Amino acid sequence: MSNQNPVFIPGPTNIPDRLRLAMQVQTQDHRAPDFVETFAPVLEDTKKVFGTTEGQIITFPASGTGGWEAAITNTLSPGDKVLVARYGVFSHRWIDLCERHGLDVQIVECTWGTGAPADRFEAILSADKAHDIKAVLVTHNETATGVRSDIRAVRHAMNAANHPAMMFVDCVSSLASMPFEFDQWGVDIAVSGSQKGFMLATGMAILCVSPKALAAMETAKLPRTFFDFRDMMAANASGGFPYTPPLQLIYGMRESLKMLFEEGLDNVYARHTRLAEGVRRAANAWGLKLVAQTPDLCSDTVSAIYVPEGFDSNELTDHAFNTYGVSFGIGLGELNGKAFRIGHLGSLTDVMVLSGLATIEMAMADLNYPIELGGGVAAAQEFYRAGTSGHAKAAA
Amino acid sequence: MSNQNPVFIPGPTNIPDRLRLAMQVQTQDHRAPDFVETFAPVLEDTKKVFGTTEGQIITFPASGTGGWEAAITNTLSPGDKVLVARYGVFSHRWIDLCERHGLDVQIVECTWGTGAPADRFEAILSADKAHDIKAVLVTHNETATGVRSDIRAVRHAMNAANHPAMMFVDCVSSLASMPFEFDQWGVDIAVSGSQKGFMLATGMAILCVSPKALAAMETAKLPRTFFDFRDMMAANASGGFPYTPPLQLIYGMRESLKMLFEEGLDNVYARHTRLAEGVRRAANAWGLKLVAQTPDLCSDTVSAIYVPEGFDSNELTDHAFNTYGVSFGIGLGELNGKAFRIGHLGSLTDVMVLSGLATIEMAMADLNYPIELGGGVAAAQEFYRAGTSGHAKAAA
Amino acid sequence: MSNQNPVFIPGPTNIPDRLRLAMQVQTQDHRAPDFVETFAPVLEDTKKVFGTTEGQIITFPASGTGGWEAAITNTLSPGDKVLVARYGVFSHRWIDLCERHGLDVQIVECTWGTGAPADRFEAILSADKAHDIKAVLVTHNETATGVRSDIRAVRHAMNAANHPAMMFVDCVSSLASMPFEFDQWGVDIAVSGSQKGFMLATGMAILCVSPKALAAMETAKLPRTFFDFRDMMAANASGGFPYTPPLQLIYGMRESLKMLFEEGLDNVYARHTRLAEGVRRAANAWGLKLVAQTPDLCSDTVSAIYVPEGFDSNELTDHAFNTYGVSFGIGLGELNGKAFRIGHLGSLTDVMVLSGLATIEMAMADLNYPIELGGGVAAAQEFYRAGTSGHAKAAA
Amino acid sequence: MSNQNPVFIPGPTNIPDRLRLAMQVQTQDHRAPDFVETFAPVLEDTKKVFGTTEGQIITFPASGTGGWEAAITNTLSPGDKVLVARYGVFSHRWIDLCERHGLDVQIVECTWGTGAPADRFEAILSADKAHDIKAVLVTHNETATGVRSDIRAVRHAMNAANHPAMMFVDCVSSLASMPFEFDQWGVDIAVSGSQKGFMLATGMAILCVSPKALAAMETAKLPRTFFDFRDMMAANASGGFPYTPPLQLIYGMRESLKMLFEEGLDNVYARHTRLAEGVRRAANAWGLKLVAQTPDLCSDTVSAIYVPEGFDSNELTDHAFNTYGVSFGIGLGELNGKAFRIGHLGSLTDVMVLSGLATIEMAMADLNYPIELGGGVAAAQEFYRAGTSGHAKAAA
Repeated sequence: MSNQNPVFIPGPTNIPDRLRLAMQVQTQDHRAPDFVETFAPVLEDTKKVFGTTEGQIITFPASGTGGWEAAITNTLSPGDKVLVARYGVFSHRWIDLCERHGLDVQIVECTWGTGAPADRFEAILSADKAHDIKAVLVTHNETATGVRSDIRAVRHAMNAANHPAMMFVDCVSSLASMPFEFDQWGVDIAVSGSQKGFMLATGMAILCVSPKALAAMETAKLPRTFFDFRDMMAANASGGFPYTPPLQLIYGMRESLKMLFEEGLDNVYARHTRLAEGVRRAANAWGLKLVAQTPDLCSDTVSAIYVPEGFDSNELTDHAFNTYGVSFGIGLGELNGKAFRIGHLGSLTDVMVLSGLATIEMAMADLNYPIELGGGVAAAQEFYRAGTSGHAKAAA
Repeated sequence: MSNQNPVFIPGPTNIPDRLRLAMQVQTQDHRAPDFVETFAPVLEDTKKVFGTTEGQIITFPASGTGGWEAAITNTLSPGDKVLVARYGVFSHRWIDLCERHGLDVQIVECTWGTGAPADRFEAILSADKAHDIKAVLVTHNETATGVRSDIRAVRHAMNAANHPAMMFVDCVSSLASMPFEFDQWGVDIAVSGSQKGFMLATGMAILCVSPKALAAMETAKLPRTFFDFRDMMAANASGGFPYTPPLQLIYGMRESLKMLFEEGLDNVYARHTRLAEGVRRAANAWGLKLVAQTPDLCSDTVSAIYVPEGFDSNELTDHAFNTYGVSFGIGLGELNGKAFRIGHLGSLTDVMVLSGLATIEMAMADLNYPIELGGGVAAAQEFYRAGTSGHAKAAA
Repeated sequence: MSNQNPVFIPGPTNIPDRLRLAMQVQTQDHRAPDFVETFAPVLEDTKKVFGTTEGQIITFPASGTGGWEAAITNTLSPGDKVLVARYGVFSHRWIDLCERHGLDVQIVECTWGTGAPADRFEAILSADKAHDIKAVLVTHNETATGVRSDIRAVRHAMNAANHPAMMFVDCVSSLASMPFEFDQWGVDIAVSGSQKGFMLATGMAILCVSPKALAAMETAKLPRTFFDFRDMMAANASGGFPYTPPLQLIYGMRESLKMLFEEGLDNVYARHTRLAEGVRRAANAWGLKLVAQTPDLCSDTVSAIYVPEGFDSNELTDHAFNTYGVSFGIGLGELNGKAFRIGHLGSLTDVMVLSGLATIEMAMADLNYPIELGGGVAAAQEFYRAGTSGHAKAAA
Repeated sequence: MSNQNPVFIPGPTNIPDRLRLAMQVQTQDHRAPDFVETFAPVLEDTKKVFGTTEGQIITFPASGTGGWEAAITNTLSPGDKVLVARYGVFSHRWIDLCERHGLDVQIVECTWGTGAPADRFEAILSADKAHDIKAVLVTHNETATGVRSDIRAVRHAMNAANHPAMMFVDCVSSLASMPFEFDQWGVDIAVSGSQKGFMLATGMAILCVSPKALAAMETAKLPRTFFDFRDMMAANASGGFPYTPPLQLIYGMRESLKMLFEEGLDNVYARHTRLAEGVRRAANAWGLKLVAQTPDLCSDTVSAIYVPEGFDSNELTDHAFNTYGVSFGIGLGELNGKAFRIGHLGSLTDVMVLSGLATIEMAMADLNYPIELGGGVAAAQEFYRAGTSGHAKAAA
């Protein structure tokens, strides 16, 4: 029965029934009118989730990593300089990808638990009089540490430095769960995926690209075919795809957008904030520290929580899985063994989160953590029940 | 999202993914060999769940009520006398059905919260020297009160009275969740359904019939066609059905049996006992009383819990549903407004039950019940976590 | 792969993807408002398919046979006289059911291949000056012979005889595929099921009941509980069900109605007529005779076709199933061995029907029937392609 | 209803029910043991389909195009020379991809309708004394023309020339439908996808890589991250994935392999040959010419068929889709307007193919093609029915 329990990993997320059904599409001819009529509105509606009217939506049958690769290869040339801060496994991976593609990566090392350092970016960009830096890469939500960076602040820094670099943002684990303002924040490419806030199966990279980034395509010399924006945009323009499209995910995306809009994006964000705050209060009740260093840095989609000195977080997550059949995120990179993560994004309710908190409490008690059974649950309950005016039913 | 929460009604129960897929069968010709090869083993395997080698399994595309009607009409004649105790809504309904079919129903009124009164049955049966009583009707698990009756004791009473009446047992909400011993207990007809312990959609009445009850068919004069055992048995004998069979439920039943046997019936029963005990400890922590009057009467599939004096249980279940999107059983019959019910049967884990307990706690707190948030949860957690040797993974 | 072939039995019919998904509903609390909001419109919309504004829709979790039993037991008393013609297996079964329930059945024997004998009914009814006959029972579409009876003519006969008997109609294999006019034809109870024109799984009997038949409930003395109209109507009135409802089928029914209305009932009927006519032309091209004796008797949902003298129709259907993986209807009753049946109702297109015709042609050729490969197919193709103005796409 | 018709495009192919259910997996933690236990055998079993014991299976969440890109970028460096013949749209696309990645592509132009020119390859390779050519690229089954190339012959040519170049083969539309012998043919990289012979949704590129190609990874300088063999192999070695895996497709792949092995690969190939031959006989009966120039070149998965002079193949496929709701492949590239294609691969039976033939016949008749209704169907029927020893049931 334990496979009926929800997962609390920070993605892929629990797929709601409605989306599982929506993805169960029989093969259709993707050259037929039906596909065209389905796909075009999906692209259009996705803009609302990115907060854009000017951006171009581009999807690939790939994962978020593929989306990053598409962002880089369509806009940059070998030897181009990019600026990026490292504050977790996912920002690190992006750096690695850039280096493998022959870019000149200027890395700003940050303590894990902090976010994008707008001030240091500003200093560096101001110093780059020659405008060698072609792009600033920012991970909006660092899934490894549960830290949300302030993208608006990065944009302000870039503006303050009066620097023309493009800004690329990884919003894989934030989009459709936390507010995103592509146009307002001046993002040039935002990269996301199907398996987080969109609550779908893994397999679709979803990008939003600004006119400025599109213009960069013309001179970009990094090789690409599968991930070429130009082929995709040309095919999409007539409702097509340059190769076989991931039909099931496109139909899933259509229904996911419908669900998000029915709940209302603001309500979706508010739900994530509420779920997250409950988890944070539980952690506090357990006397455990979040990896995120300050409250303003706390992600609303995932919380990374330090285990007490002398405990091994891998043992905790293994025990929770083996004994209670519940998956939590392990500590990644330098946090391995030191922290575990509770994913609280996508298709989740207060009720489901409480089962996760109750479970990890049992696991902690089993392993002699100095916590009280029911303590974290009660802290979350107290928060969830305050102001109960119909919220839990909102997305029924 | 709230429709992703599990339900805590005492049936229909949460359908596990595996069974939802198993029931998603495309139409096949039920006169073709494939159907025969599927159906015969299902009937055979179902015997194990009833605990019988001598009984005959008979199914109908109907609900449990239809199963009751089949039991009566195939074995009795207008005016026949039956003995039955009333201790809840479901035992009451059976009485009503008998009366509508022109039977002479001798009713033993019992306090709700108690079970089948073996001693009073013995007295009545002993006094029935003429053996006018043709059948004793017992509800194994009274879903309205959360009381499990002792069927073995009823059999002993009948034997002690040396009475030849048949014994019919309603095990709709107990079969496949609590031990059932058709042969050992000397049951003549047991009536169950697809939507409780079998974790399937509603729509199949499942009966087990003893040779003695089959013999009674020959003289029974109550009219029946749809529910006629003879037609069904004759058709089943060659793998057929006297009318269009409920293919989806039959395939679902095949998979359900597979799941039950993979987990192991004893493990299934132990899981239900464990889940139930956690709920009872939570109720105790809340200071609330069970409807079941003594511990030995407590059902392992549903707990009926009195709300404190001055509170309305309907308000509680409504609030839980409207605010948190979780369904609990309401109080039925004379318990309406006075008790609510937590169903804990079928496809459920400790983890899922904890979410139900956490939810009803929040609802009680919202309505100013004198309970402590986290209190019931902690009591259940403490019990669930004790002896964690792999139990939760058992039926993964 | 052969289980991917459509079936050509006259029900249960091929379930379209859309309905398979619609029936894949997770358990919900049937006492909750969502169920009420779903169920009431389903009952209301079903009226359109029956062609009624005055009739009451009543459903049971059962098969069509259960629907017949409900019709009888709710309106008649033991010893009541009913008039019915026997012209196939299904009209025969209804007679059998009436007899088992102690009714006095006046049977009019008709040649199989003919339909309800309005003239003989008129004579008998006219002669029944005492109005002993309480109901006339008519099978609208005799599935065994592929004959559609003229219900309007039966009504005229009853009116001409100035007889007050009720008229009950079995429309199991015609409703939602061929026109039905409950009000205009003066039907008192019409009985159908979920697994034919509604294209759903088996398991729901669907009845339409006139005010006159409802009035008869008050005096009807045949025992019933599971099938009691009164309990069902009382519960339905507040959106409920007197026992656990077949949730999956109710949600399926909602979607089925939506599909029927999207295609348009008139287009649905026209499609069935077109599909049927193609099959009839194929039979003609093969030189085979239909069981239906005259063109006006031909059913649009199933064609029963005589095999030539000296051939065994069972061998033909067995061969088609075993060799090509396609199910056709066997000859039933006195037609066993002499005729086979092609079901052409529900979720079917011209294209699918052509595959059935091509298959039975191969099977006939294999068994040395004097037919030409492609001959029947060509006759059907010629008909299907004539007037191709978008018809095939109608219900896409 | 027309969306219930099978598609006759050469991929994505009709998804059988069993695989649609298999892909309907709820999210699991891909870092948990269950995933490891599922994924490793999938990789192992896939080898059997490629006909290899030495090759390494590598999958990516991408389309076949992504697979090509992976093949190139993991083994070659900018400026490397590759030899490839152009005889259709898909061989052309591969050339385009190589050129975009800065390779030096030596193109052998061939008439469309022919296959890989082993003799011309041999001459070129023999002349390449410096062994500048690093790889020979061959499209096994050119989906645009319905031509199967002789890979063994290409290997013989390479051996005859005593040339050390690697051989890369596109088997996207042949694998799991036609025999493939990775080891025997000396293939170095074979590229396929989930949506053709594996009968799954689009979204997984499936490669088989020889030890020689793996060795080339070490020196290959084309940039890659998402498609990097090394990351994937390192992660796979411990049952993991370098990024979020496409869980649904992996579970689907497991079931697909099970289906293929249950039917037996030889039976799968024989079925495709039989289906294809029926289509070819139909084309012949229509008096239409295949694009494939000689019988030995004919693909068993797709037939490209010239329309007569003066007719527009696009009009034909549009009409078939718009009027009868059936999708056929259009003519691609220089064949656009001149030929249409019938895909006959994956989850298909004789019965289903006959419906496709009957449909295109109707469409041709509607458009005044000089064909006889039923003629092509009869030719296919005659072939399909010859030797009916249980073949059609093989994969039931």
